[in-house]
Amino acid sequence: MGSEDKIISWLCRLTVITAFFFIGFIIGWFARPTTVNHGHASKSFLHDFLDEMQAENIKHHLRKFTRLPHLAGSQQNLDLAKQIRAEWMEFGLDSVELVPYDMLLSYPNKTNPNYISIVDHLGNEIFNTSLAEPVPEGYEDVTDIVPPYSAFSAKGQPEDELVYVNYGRTEDFFKLERELGINCSGKIVIARYGKIFRGNKVKNAMLAGAKGIVLFSDPADYCADGVEPYPDGWNLPGGGAQRGNVLNLNGAGDPLTPGYPAKEYTYRSSLEDAVGLPKIPVHPIGYHDAVHLLQHMGGPLPPDNWKGALNISYRIGPGFMDGLNQNKVRMNIHTNNQVTRIYNVIGWIRGAVEPDRYVILGGHRDAWVFGGIDPVSGAAVVHESVRAAGKLMKKGWRPRRTLIFASWDAEEFGLLGSTEWAEDHARVLQERAVAYINADSAIEGQTHTHTHSLHYDVFLKVSSPEDGEEGMTLYQSWHKRDNSTERDAPWISKLGSGSDFEAYFIRLGIASGRARYTKNRKTEHYSSYPVYHSVYETYEIVERFYDPSFRRLEAVARVRGGLIFSLADSPVLPLDCVEYAMSLTKYANSIYQLALKHPAAMEQYSVSFDSLFSAVENFTVAARDFHQRLDQLDTSNALAVRMVNDQLMYLERAFTDPLGLPGRPFYRHIIFAPSSHNKYAGESFPGIYDALFDIENAVDPQKAWDEVKRQISIAAFTVNTAAETLRPVVKTVKTSLNHILN
Amino acid sequence: MGSEDKIISWLCRLTVITAFFFIGFIIGWFARPTTVNHGHASKSFLHDFLDEMQAENIKHHLRKFTRLPHLAGSQQNLDLAKQIRAEWMEFGLDSVELVPYDMLLSYPNKTNPNYISIVDHLGNEIFNTSLAEPVPEGYEDVTDIVPPYSAFSAKGQPEDELVYVNYGRTEDFFKLERELGINCSGKIVIARYGKIFRGNKVKNAMLAGAKGIVLFSDPADYCADGVEPYPDGWNLPGGGAQRGNVLNLNGAGDPLTPGYPAKEYTYRSSLEDAVGLPKIPVHPIGYHDAVHLLQHMGGPLPPDNWKGALNISYRIGPGFMDGLNQNKVRMNIHTNNQVTRIYNVIGWIRGAVEPDRYVILGGHRDAWVFGGIDPVSGAAVVHESVRAAGKLMKKGWRPRRTLIFASWDAEEFGLLGSTEWAEDHARVLQERAVAYINADSAIEGQTHTHTHSLHYDVFLKVSSPEDGEEGMTLYQSWHKRDNSTERDAPWISKLGSGSDFEAYFIRLGIASGRARYTKNRKTEHYSSYPVYHSVYETYEIVERFYDPSFRRLEAVARVRGGLIFSLADSPVLPLDCVEYAMSLTKYANSIYQLALKHPAAMEQYSVSFDSLFSAVENFTVAARDFHQRLDQLDTSNALAVRMVNDQLMYLERAFTDPLGLPGRPFYRHIIFAPSSHNKYAGESFPGIYDALFDIENAVDPQKAWDEVKRQISIAAFTVNTAAETLRPVVKTVKTSLNHILN
Repeated sequence: MGSEDKIISWLCRLTVITAFFFIGFIIGWFARPTTVNHGHASKSFLHDFLDEMQAENIKHHLRKFTRLPHLAGSQQNLDLAKQIRAEWMEFGLDSVELVPYDMLLSYPNKTNPNYISIVDHLGNEIFNTSLAEPVPEGYEDVTDIVPPYSAFSAKGQPEDELVYVNYGRTEDFFKLERELGINCSGKIVIARYGKIFRGNKVKNAMLAGAKGIVLFSDPADYCADGVEPYPDGWNLPGGGAQRGNVLNLNGAGDPLTPGYPAKEYTYRSSLEDAVGLPKIPVHPIGYHDAVHLLQHMGGPLPPDNWKGALNISYRIGPGFMDGLNQNKVRMNIHTNNQVTRIYNVIGWIRGAVEPDRYVILGGHRDAWVFGGIDPVSGAAVVHESVRAAGKLMKKGWRPRRTLIFASWDAEEFGLLGSTEWAEDHARVLQERAVAYINADSAIEGQTHTHTHSLHYDVFLKVSSPEDGEEGMTLYQSWHKRDNSTERDAPWISKLGSGSDFEAYFIRLGIASGRARYTKNRKTEHYSSYPVYHSVYETYEIVERFYDPSFRRLEAVARVRGGLIFSLADSPVLPLDCVEYAMSLTKYANSIYQLALKHPAAMEQYSVSFDSLFSAVENFTVAARDFHQRLDQLDTSNALAVRMVNDQLMYLERAFTDPLGLPGRPFYRHIIFAPSSHNKYAGESFPGIYDALFDIENAVDPQKAWDEVKRQISIAAFTVNTAAETLRPVVKTVKTSLNHILN
Repeated sequence: MGSEDKIISWLCRLTVITAFFFIGFIIGWFARPTTVNHGHASKSFLHDFLDEMQAENIKHHLRKFTRLPHLAGSQQNLDLAKQIRAEWMEFGLDSVELVPYDMLLSYPNKTNPNYISIVDHLGNEIFNTSLAEPVPEGYEDVTDIVPPYSAFSAKGQPEDELVYVNYGRTEDFFKLERELGINCSGKIVIARYGKIFRGNKVKNAMLAGAKGIVLFSDPADYCADGVEPYPDGWNLPGGGAQRGNVLNLNGAGDPLTPGYPAKEYTYRSSLEDAVGLPKIPVHPIGYHDAVHLLQHMGGPLPPDNWKGALNISYRIGPGFMDGLNQNKVRMNIHTNNQVTRIYNVIGWIRGAVEPDRYVILGGHRDAWVFGGIDPVSGAAVVHESVRAAGKLMKKGWRPRRTLIFASWDAEEFGLLGSTEWAEDHARVLQERAVAYINADSAIEGQTHTHTHSLHYDVFLKVSSPEDGEEGMTLYQSWHKRDNSTERDAPWISKLGSGSDFEAYFIRLGIASGRARYTKNRKTEHYSSYPVYHSVYETYEIVERFYDPSFRRLEAVARVRGGLIFSLADSPVLPLDCVEYAMSLTKYANSIYQLALKHPAAMEQYSVSFDSLFSAVENFTVAARDFHQRLDQLDTSNALAVRMVNDQLMYLERAFTDPLGLPGRPFYRHIIFAPSSHNKYAGESFPGIYDALFDIENAVDPQKAWDEVKRQISIAAFTVNTAAETLRPVVKTVKTSLNHILN
């Protein structure tokens, strides 16, 4: 099969594969059934709005926004911000502003590059990793391409033996230390990318006592079978490497100003007190370079399932002493942290009826290099939504509620732009924000796990863009490919983190959602998409491989746009608490099953989940009753409608706790948080989950199980209190308790 | 002068003295000028409501509620709760419920009483303090009078020399340790009551290393000149002693369930991990007993201003070794902590137009013994307000917003009942509560400092109850006695703590207020009122001395009642942000002046208050603009009115920070907090204040001044963000920044 055939074959497969919807958006609950009156006038405007968004325009936006690198803090990214502001004003928004913050970013030292060496016993560097990726054709003259680096790495030149730690997951280190008896303390470790957020790998390495960590892309994780490396296919070339920040911020935003916006006057902590910075050097390499390092390792052979796809023998454990070689590895890291100004672009359309209710569509603009997929496939979609909204306004439309469009900066450095804006406006957002819809990469993003909620309506209104599915709705197309769950509806997963919804959803408790095209997780095992965060994320990779007709991006634009339209324009908010109740039931059962793995301890320490199940039942009843009352709502009574909308809006808020999760004060949502072991994944009832984690090895089991009980109590209370927000706002009957007492 | 003459003379003086208003209520801002349209119908109902509250009824309620002791957790107090519930239902509330919580309380051991001994060198107890107060006439047959004790004292029988520490304030210990070179470590200390909250005395003693603390009432602090002890006058008898809790909760509520309501299913920490419990024995005594202990002390003479009024030589410092005597003091404390059920009574009147907006009138019901003043002078007033509201409802009235009446339990044990209810309903309260008006003792309460805000309107509508002031309004009467401030209005002070508004105001950011009759602080120097927390707080002390005609209580009822009426019924909330701005200016100047006491350090560490002053200016402009827009408000547009009311309601919320103050996570208000050195007192900009406190003695000045800068930054941000909540809800003009950037 020739190269062209292969492309075509992959195009076809990809068409099928990516037609699969990866919908991971939470709006805190599911679609309202169709009983809700969306208003006839608005319905026709919705149709106009969806139709207005066109593939050709999105293609044009994508092309325009990917010509130059636009790294956060760079002049190019400020120029792009100004361009977006100018175009949004032209499209017809009521106002658009650039909102600057001064935050800690991290860049390689331009005169002293980062690399990894193999050093012989005489101290000679006998091999050095490459300083940059081969630049793709057509971009040879572009300057300011930042080489692959781990943002916020510590500086340093540690030198020692190398220990291979597989993906660097918690369980990988457990296996090394507990089963294989291999100690990483004082060593340099090397982990392959994939499975979990790279910051968690670095944290685990630090916990294990490593003095440096090298991250590499193994073809097993970054190449699909039979696909060519870019530019002939969409696989990662051997010289490509994944940039990315290696922070453990836990939602803090700018590391120097946790909890407060990084304004000019804001107090900044010292670097020593900064949140989440790794204390050890970190550096990413491609698989061409990785081969050399791995070849020079000693130690025993790894478990079979740790062996990657590189054509060498992986080994684990310190190898210096086994006599195979006496070479060491040296990291040479000179990356600088520096306070840098970044710019969000914020656009407003004032609501006609309830201007003090906000619906937000936000996605980031900054990219590691060109950002062909991440983020511009998303930013182009936002741009088209803004254009379409402006067009509608010229026809006389204005949404019932206020619409806010955001082009975030410095997402790649730890969701910084979006988090600082959330911190800056936390009070008004908590009072007024109805929902936040995220707009990162629209197609083939990272392998985030999925969330439980969905507004299905909009999927019924958008056509499938796939060949051979003419006349099918997007819902049908999606359902066809994802019908594996127990319910007759496609699967929607929990929101984790790794994109800009984090501060809005996990910290502030604003109902949030995301939607995009993804791969078939059952058959495609590579992590995120192969060229993720490399120089090969170009316009061409989308145009040649991912969405040649741009109709998938058009479909995503219509879904995201349709969601904000419906949230902003429906008299009664299109949110369903009953579905939330069903999810809570599922999560409660799931965490209970996890605890049941320790039946003896459960009994010994009198651990009961009764209060949690009782709370979930209370919530379920309250949700059902709420929707029954909603059916009798007098929609002509403006204050009555406002009252139930406030109940719907504040429900998600009720799940947050100002005290936050243990050790993670900015993760305040009690039902959902990013996993402590993988920021990308969402964990339900994270407080209980973390208390149960590895509890069989707790030093003080009494204390450990007490913490489980405390977390069950907090979860039960939180669910109960959320139920209360849905009940009638005034108690009008005496509780049965009073009768007992008399 | 005969005894009767003296009483009459004191009655006269008291009339004048207490005619002085002690108004310490914050509603987050001041009275709206009269431009607000309160609605004509409501105005006439307000008049009816105020008139309906009558002195004779209040007298009747007071008599009824003070016949028996009603300590928190006792059967009597549950009986009283049921009685109140039954009467509130009868008065016509829509619903009334008892709300139970199970919290840590503390009681003396009934079979093993607490006392303090003087022990000679052979170990013989040569003097023991009394086990109970002499019971007042008419109450001889009453059982269940709890003897004077310090609730939550540690158990123990420490024995050592006694060190006199004056009031036990921070500055007293500083003087002892730094100027007089006296070390309290390992000693038992004795402090006189007064000036600060007793829990702070205990905390200071623990910090100084003391192993026990005796608290006594010195006549200098608990007797007014020329007044007879009760029952011939209102002074504290020598056998009387002040009960009270000695916790340092910092707003946590139940010590075992900080942050969460103490429900049956709630996880409870161990006693070791409980919040705020003293680690040393504490016990209160009267001045008859105190004389004996003080006579047996050795050590040097105290500073002149430490000498109390007891007819003995006070001495300070360890005296055992000076040869005067070899006696020691032994504390015998057997008080038990135990989880106990308590009951709040919560009554509701559903709002007619905005049922999801709550106005709360709350005061506690539990008393140390009879509670003649504390709390029943307040509870009787609440009862009369409920009766009057019920009467109005029978005439067809229903407030625009929902009214909630609360009879709190276990206030005396650390504001526990009110705090647990606030924790239980934090989400709905933060969404829906317009204001909280506190109703503790209505007359002659403790010497709280005062707050900056006031709804003056109601004082114009209530007549002065004083003899010789016929035809005067309460406002005029008050103004006549308190016109010492720069502005032509009576003085209103900051809210501190020590009563049930704490969780509502300081934690949840709900605009709060209090109002009561007090003494003339300039001429009357005794602490709170002399019989405070003793068995002598009877019905008779009010009826004979404090308010024989019950017209003062009537006036307080009308003020508190008028406030909730106006907050619940005015179409536009009667709150004024411009006055808040003026207060912020005052507080900013004040904290700046405090910092300026360290000019060299301010320069060395580049400490600037510019950001705070700039924020206050931003707030001032936003507040002024807000009220200007309010004048143009279309009051026929229900949603427009709701929108500005939401801005007014949420303003106070905007001053809170979920991260709380350093080390005090439940004190979340950035502008006001109880002083770290005296819970009773309110401190403005408490974060900055605490950072500056004793900074000249900081071990690490750089770090200490960094914390000052951080706190200034937080305060500036908070004031800025509060300003934002008052601005138009949608930005419609580009900021000047954008022009600069282009």
